[in-house]
Amino acid sequence: MSNPNITLMTDLYELTMMQGYYKNPTDQIVVFDAFYRVNPCDGGYAICAGLEQVIDYIRDLHFDPDDIDYLRSLHLFEDDFLEYLRGFHFTGDIYAIPEGTVVFPREPLVKVIAPLMEAQLIEPALLNLINHQSLIATRASRVVHAAKGDGIMEFGLRRAQGPDAGTLGARAAVIGGCIGTSNVLTGKLFHVPVKGTHAHSWIMSFPDELTAFRTYAKLYPNACILLVDTYDVLKSGVPNAIRVFQEMRDAGIPLKGYGIRIDSGDLAYLSKMAYRMLDEAGFGDAIISASSDLDEYLINSLKEQGAKINSWGVGTNLITSNGWSAFGGVYKMAAIKNKNDREFTPKIKLSENTEKVTNPGNKTVFRLYSKTTGKIKADLIALEGESFDPEKDLTIFDPISTWKKTTLRGGSYSVRELLVPVFKNGLCVYHSPEVMEIQKVCKRELDTLWEESRRLMNPHQVYVDLSDKLYDMKKQLFEEMSLKEQQAHRASEDSAEKQK
Amino acid sequence: MSNPNITLMTDLYELTMMQGYYKNPTDQIVVFDAFYRVNPCDGGYAICAGLEQVIDYIRDLHFDPDDIDYLRSLHLFEDDFLEYLRGFHFTGDIYAIPEGTVVFPREPLVKVIAPLMEAQLIEPALLNLINHQSLIATRASRVVHAAKGDGIMEFGLRRAQGPDAGTLGARAAVIGGCIGTSNVLTGKLFHVPVKGTHAHSWIMSFPDELTAFRTYAKLYPNACILLVDTYDVLKSGVPNAIRVFQEMRDAGIPLKGYGIRIDSGDLAYLSKMAYRMLDEAGFGDAIISASSDLDEYLINSLKEQGAKINSWGVGTNLITSNGWSAFGGVYKMAAIKNKNDREFTPKIKLSENTEKVTNPGNKTVFRLYSKTTGKIKADLIALEGESFDPEKDLTIFDPISTWKKTTLRGGSYSVRELLVPVFKNGLCVYHSPEVMEIQKVCKRELDTLWEESRRLMNPHQVYVDLSDKLYDMKKQLFEEMSLKEQQAHRASEDSAEKQK
Repeated sequence: MSNPNITLMTDLYELTMMQGYYKNPTDQIVVFDAFYRVNPCDGGYAICAGLEQVIDYIRDLHFDPDDIDYLRSLHLFEDDFLEYLRGFHFTGDIYAIPEGTVVFPREPLVKVIAPLMEAQLIEPALLNLINHQSLIATRASRVVHAAKGDGIMEFGLRRAQGPDAGTLGARAAVIGGCIGTSNVLTGKLFHVPVKGTHAHSWIMSFPDELTAFRTYAKLYPNACILLVDTYDVLKSGVPNAIRVFQEMRDAGIPLKGYGIRIDSGDLAYLSKMAYRMLDEAGFGDAIISASSDLDEYLINSLKEQGAKINSWGVGTNLITSNGWSAFGGVYKMAAIKNKNDREFTPKIKLSENTEKVTNPGNKTVFRLYSKTTGKIKADLIALEGESFDPEKDLTIFDPISTWKKTTLRGGSYSVRELLVPVFKNGLCVYHSPEVMEIQKVCKRELDTLWEESRRLMNPHQVYVDLSDKLYDMKKQLFEEMSLKEQQAHRASEDSAEKQK
Repeated sequence: MSNPNITLMTDLYELTMMQGYYKNPTDQIVVFDAFYRVNPCDGGYAICAGLEQVIDYIRDLHFDPDDIDYLRSLHLFEDDFLEYLRGFHFTGDIYAIPEGTVVFPREPLVKVIAPLMEAQLIEPALLNLINHQSLIATRASRVVHAAKGDGIMEFGLRRAQGPDAGTLGARAAVIGGCIGTSNVLTGKLFHVPVKGTHAHSWIMSFPDELTAFRTYAKLYPNACILLVDTYDVLKSGVPNAIRVFQEMRDAGIPLKGYGIRIDSGDLAYLSKMAYRMLDEAGFGDAIISASSDLDEYLINSLKEQGAKINSWGVGTNLITSNGWSAFGGVYKMAAIKNKNDREFTPKIKLSENTEKVTNPGNKTVFRLYSKTTGKIKADLIALEGESFDPEKDLTIFDPISTWKKTTLRGGSYSVRELLVPVFKNGLCVYHSPEVMEIQKVCKRELDTLWEESRRLMNPHQVYVDLSDKLYDMKKQLFEEMSLKEQQAHRASEDSAEKQK
């Protein structure tokens, strides 16, 4: 994780707004939802990730004396507000969908219920952490899916967008299904497998390729993957590798986890030719590993071409999610109340774009599974406190095209609430699992999707519906807002009229 | 910057290779070049950035006891090698092109001359830092260029790929020409302007928009930019903003740095209509700020449509460089020598792709400027120790299409060496300028490009040629390598023959 104290890693407007609230004191408690609108790569789902880092961040929230000094130097903030910041810490509640869970657009991935000022400050860092890791975990799951059971290694550190993108990105990639990473720091911090062999420079630092291979094989006989494309894959690299494997065999060294890596050129052709050469020499079980600007689409194409590759190293396109470089998560106010009120007043943000109108109220998310297949039937965004009896029939409908309805028969489905408590009154009540545990969760989660929702292109979109109660609340609020606006508009026209 | 100690933020293979070198001791000193092959977004140039963080990283290189413990737990490394790591620090030389400089493909941006093991370890972190910030600085310069003099604010923190990507990305964006960032931590760490006003949630936390605007105006009368699209830009937001500006004027509050921000919808149409309304009310000098998934192409298009926007906030597409999410810098061995040798032996990496064949030798980069225009004529990659007398004619040629030649007349051009010493024998000999100084450097640097090289699409590519000496060396090495390979291939075939 980044800088020991990243409390100042927030947008300036959060602080100017906070001072505004401080100067106009309210005891308002608000509900903010973090959610996203479109699945990465126009896919059929996303994997949420990054919660462990959000927890670390919230726990450590505090302004150091030099943070206060810096803020004072901006000549925007007054002493009483800065004094308030000095004692600032988080006192609210946070609910979140556990890492590794399959999620869909418009569902609250994280829900913050806190005094307005606190909820506001944490917006950028919370979104940053969730957006980044959810993006990479989702992308990794797509790459892993394309490889149809072959192992995917993450090794994009050198191309990642900064140190955290390399280290936390590798964490997310492992959650999404990568079997390991080249990044040793990620291995240390998150107890995930680290892997790697040698680079072109290893070969180039020896008088010739054969000597380089022999030296490497002697050092690491149990993980002898030889990089064969420094000079010429088929004329030099593969023949030299075979020679070294023969020498190992002749010397009675058991050949396990051995093979070659091809890092450039026509991977389909080269892998097939290399396999033929290896197989003819009695090394048909050698690992043939490939790397070189791979992504899920290219791996899919290589598989279709019958490339003889059984291990994949994926760098740049995974660690930066090239072509779809942001998750697009947003953080929107959904409800507000005074401290001593019992009920929240729902809030809505209108937009010219129907899809961008937010879901109001203090909400939760239910997942409905088919009991026969174990697959997801639909998700239901509902109001906090609603419950659904799976023994009863349940009719759900598309919140935009409301005529699209489905009735789930009682007894045929099960219900699971996705959001779990993470902070209560500022105290963490959740224990983050180890990353390799989250990877297992994620694998099980992906199994609850139909294959049609995992397709790389034009996948089936899982239904995310609203409960009747939430739908009615939204509709009513929408109508009230429109009315209010019209009145305001008329009032403003009247006032303009008067001035003329 | 990231984790206090990011020494382990390296690829595992660097460490396995290091142990290989440790076990087969050499006193080899090597030259590695960090360079890139294609300009971001297929543009005509790049801006190099990230050197300050590379310096911090190199200075702090060391393995903590728990790093050693972790490496031991991998069961890959032997005690003597781990003992060696315990005392590890960098002892080599580093040369680099200063941050903010305009650079082109194939030029060494950073050159490392160091014992092989040290040069190897630092590869991933060095590339990560240079790749990330050079990408964002370059992208920022494109966005700034498209805005034709209007200010560009960076505010992508929430969409950045992790904390460092937000904080160091904002640093790079300011180097590339952004007038400020929303990220307060970047402001604190790098002394750059931070900016921001309020969010939709500010509006939503008040009973109505007008009250929210009034409260904000009272708090920040000198920076009163009101967000007008929470409900309806033209029916509600702009009329309410005008009312507040009128009230300020009536109260005798000087209106400066005031205006509106539009964050959604048809920015061309809305800005023109908003301008008309503001102008009619006597607020024609108001700032009209726009945000909403902007990039250089969209800003260019809005400018062409005559949008009345004079301030731009750019988030996601800049901070993640959407559509071109990696700089693609590589780090290649170029030469090697034994410690007591006087001369380096050049090294080359062949490739099926001519463009991917590396430039061998211990090199430097000269920039040739026209004395009349001050613009760049060409860059010349040469061998260390070569010099060029600008009073003499100089014929340069394209290293691939060698028939493309140009002769610069003596007296008509000036010469500048781009690489400067940064580390000597492990000690830092370079002082990084302040970011706002680098921004000025960058602005001057961009002025040395012809407009044709700054075009967003199909720009003119500046010539990057090789000196005669370097060209000849490369050609000779290339031929030697091909010969050697053929011999090796024949030897391998003979040996295969014998075994049959």
